[in-house]
Amino acid sequence: MALRVGVIGGGQLARMMIAPAVELGLDLRVLAESDGMSAGLAATAVGDYRDLDTVRAFVADVDVVTFDHEHVPQEVLRALVEDGVSVHPGPHALQFAQDKLVMRAKLAELGVPQPDWAAVHDPDELARFLDDHDGRGVVKTPRGGYDGKGVRVVRDAADAQDWFDALNEGEALLVEELVPFVRELAQQVARRPSGEIAAYPVVETVQRDGVCAEVIAPAPSAPVRLSEVAEGIGRSIAEGLGVTGMLAVELFETADERVLVNELAMRPHNSGHWSQDGAVTGQFEQHLRAVADLPLGDTTPRAPWSVMVNILGGPQEGTIGERFAAAMTEHPSAKIHTYGKDPRPGRKVGHVNVVGQDLDDAVYQARAAAAHFD
Amino acid sequence: MALRVGVIGGGQLARMMIAPAVELGLDLRVLAESDGMSAGLAATAVGDYRDLDTVRAFVADVDVVTFDHEHVPQEVLRALVEDGVSVHPGPHALQFAQDKLVMRAKLAELGVPQPDWAAVHDPDELARFLDDHDGRGVVKTPRGGYDGKGVRVVRDAADAQDWFDALNEGEALLVEELVPFVRELAQQVARRPSGEIAAYPVVETVQRDGVCAEVIAPAPSAPVRLSEVAEGIGRSIAEGLGVTGMLAVELFETADERVLVNELAMRPHNSGHWSQDGAVTGQFEQHLRAVADLPLGDTTPRAPWSVMVNILGGPQEGTIGERFAAAMTEHPSAKIHTYGKDPRPGRKVGHVNVVGQDLDDAVYQARAAAAHFD
Repeated sequence: MALRVGVIGGGQLARMMIAPAVELGLDLRVLAESDGMSAGLAATAVGDYRDLDTVRAFVADVDVVTFDHEHVPQEVLRALVEDGVSVHPGPHALQFAQDKLVMRAKLAELGVPQPDWAAVHDPDELARFLDDHDGRGVVKTPRGGYDGKGVRVVRDAADAQDWFDALNEGEALLVEELVPFVRELAQQVARRPSGEIAAYPVVETVQRDGVCAEVIAPAPSAPVRLSEVAEGIGRSIAEGLGVTGMLAVELFETADERVLVNELAMRPHNSGHWSQDGAVTGQFEQHLRAVADLPLGDTTPRAPWSVMVNILGGPQEGTIGERFAAAMTEHPSAKIHTYGKDPRPGRKVGHVNVVGQDLDDAVYQARAAAAHFD
Repeated sequence: MALRVGVIGGGQLARMMIAPAVELGLDLRVLAESDGMSAGLAATAVGDYRDLDTVRAFVADVDVVTFDHEHVPQEVLRALVEDGVSVHPGPHALQFAQDKLVMRAKLAELGVPQPDWAAVHDPDELARFLDDHDGRGVVKTPRGGYDGKGVRVVRDAADAQDWFDALNEGEALLVEELVPFVRELAQQVARRPSGEIAAYPVVETVQRDGVCAEVIAPAPSAPVRLSEVAEGIGRSIAEGLGVTGMLAVELFETADERVLVNELAMRPHNSGHWSQDGAVTGQFEQHLRAVADLPLGDTTPRAPWSVMVNILGGPQEGTIGERFAAAMTEHPSAKIHTYGKDPRPGRKVGHVNVVGQDLDDAVYQARAAAAHFD
């Protein structure tokens, strides 16, 4: 009988696991938040992932559990592990993706390069940090942020007053130095429960308004040393935190060619969508192989350059079908991936991958194809 | 709302449409012959495709109908068209894939190169054909054959006596000259209802016991002229027969560099499985684009060579899981595609694709990976 992989969360990351699961012969089952989600085709249950009974009922007939997102509460995760369920990544690893303060402390312990940071419980503590860092900083809510939410650049402790007001007794915000980076990079690795690790080439990511807009793989003009350092950081974190499945490490590259860890994600990640078409083994297949404890696949790029451009929002005029046809006609090399979501301004509803020999052409084709939908 | 594509038949060809349908954002719905079929994940109905009421109920909520196989009776197909259903390929085109005598007559009319052939109603007619062709011939039942079934090499008219005995009044068998071919090739093209055609490179196919065993894309050492002739034949047949969706033309290559049409298939075909990993647009995606009347995709190979090796039968020892892991470990570049079928000696249960720069290495890796399952 086919191995049954249960995915908690029915968003586009779960959806994009469907294709490789079919080819690998894995029986994918999804616990979706509601009907009609992106991964609806594979949904076998609908319910609240914060409710232990709901999650227990869902996992009763799967062999391994993994995730579309990192928001399943620790209490639920730990109860599953106590039940004897195989959970990848496990709660111990996931805590570092769920709480940015816990993550910063752990990376410090591992000696991984990262921005200066502090846990600040009140505006006074924040003011002292800002004084030490040219009067600027990035304040983050430790939990629940994504796509730029829960992140704020501050120049005065009062700029975070509302967030301090919302803290419970004993809680803190995270403040980080505002890194003068030259660009952002992302390093992905996959790790199996048995310990095997496979690394992807480090990529360049371009964010707009806190949301990933474009990815170029591999990162152009990255010196070999920088690529090696990025891969080393990915491996250290995967091992040090005991990650299983895909790990994405978002990085700042500084003018003096250092790389500093910005964020972590323990699941397939937007920075790795290029690999669906651009690598021998795409990240969604690799994640499934890793959590199912199958041998990891070849991460070699299929061509010198892969470019991913997100499709945000929706059609301004014409139907989706008309825009789809126009994009396909004008850019036959562009691979368009859709998420089955209703378009809404700024919402990620799909992405375009272009793989080729020439970077400028690939960037142009991917942007132009995606622009048909914006 | 997503375009709903209904597939009649729940075998591996329907299964392999699931992955590209998800990425294209098409809502794939399958009428499966029974529960637990290869394409079960997308099955929305189970029933007999020969029963008009069953098929009518299935197509009631789809926008376009296509097929996993060519066995849906003409009466059913024509009734759907009369109902106003969009059927691709349509019944007029499908008749040429359903009846080899009708196909031979049509190709003769189109002037497409093919083996000498005749419709023979009795052993005497067959004997006369054999007399004119060195005493040898290939007898075929016009309908229902596949994977070598319904095909028999004869040296005497009595060799087909049982098939003649089974004919109804007025029916005939097909006899073809036994072509002294040097190898077998296959040409695939896709055609949209609007008339757009996209051609794949001609490939070499290796049959064992009448079943496709290996495919090399493109066909090694094929002179440009031969490739052009093969593509021209594919285009002529697609246009001349009004095919919509994928068309596969199986060809004999003779010692004097002629190509003769052997068989036709109007659906994704085993000879095109390489394109899942080896072409910018795989045949399953292309078939969906064609039947949905979306612009056709780029058919350019991703690398110089692609090799496909079928997985036949099942494990001789060890579980499928153990063999899967061993194949993946030893051949990380091999892409293993499974059909979710119970293994049985000689049954196609999956295939392996290897894409690379070196043909000998790709052949070795694909064969060795597949051998883990045989």
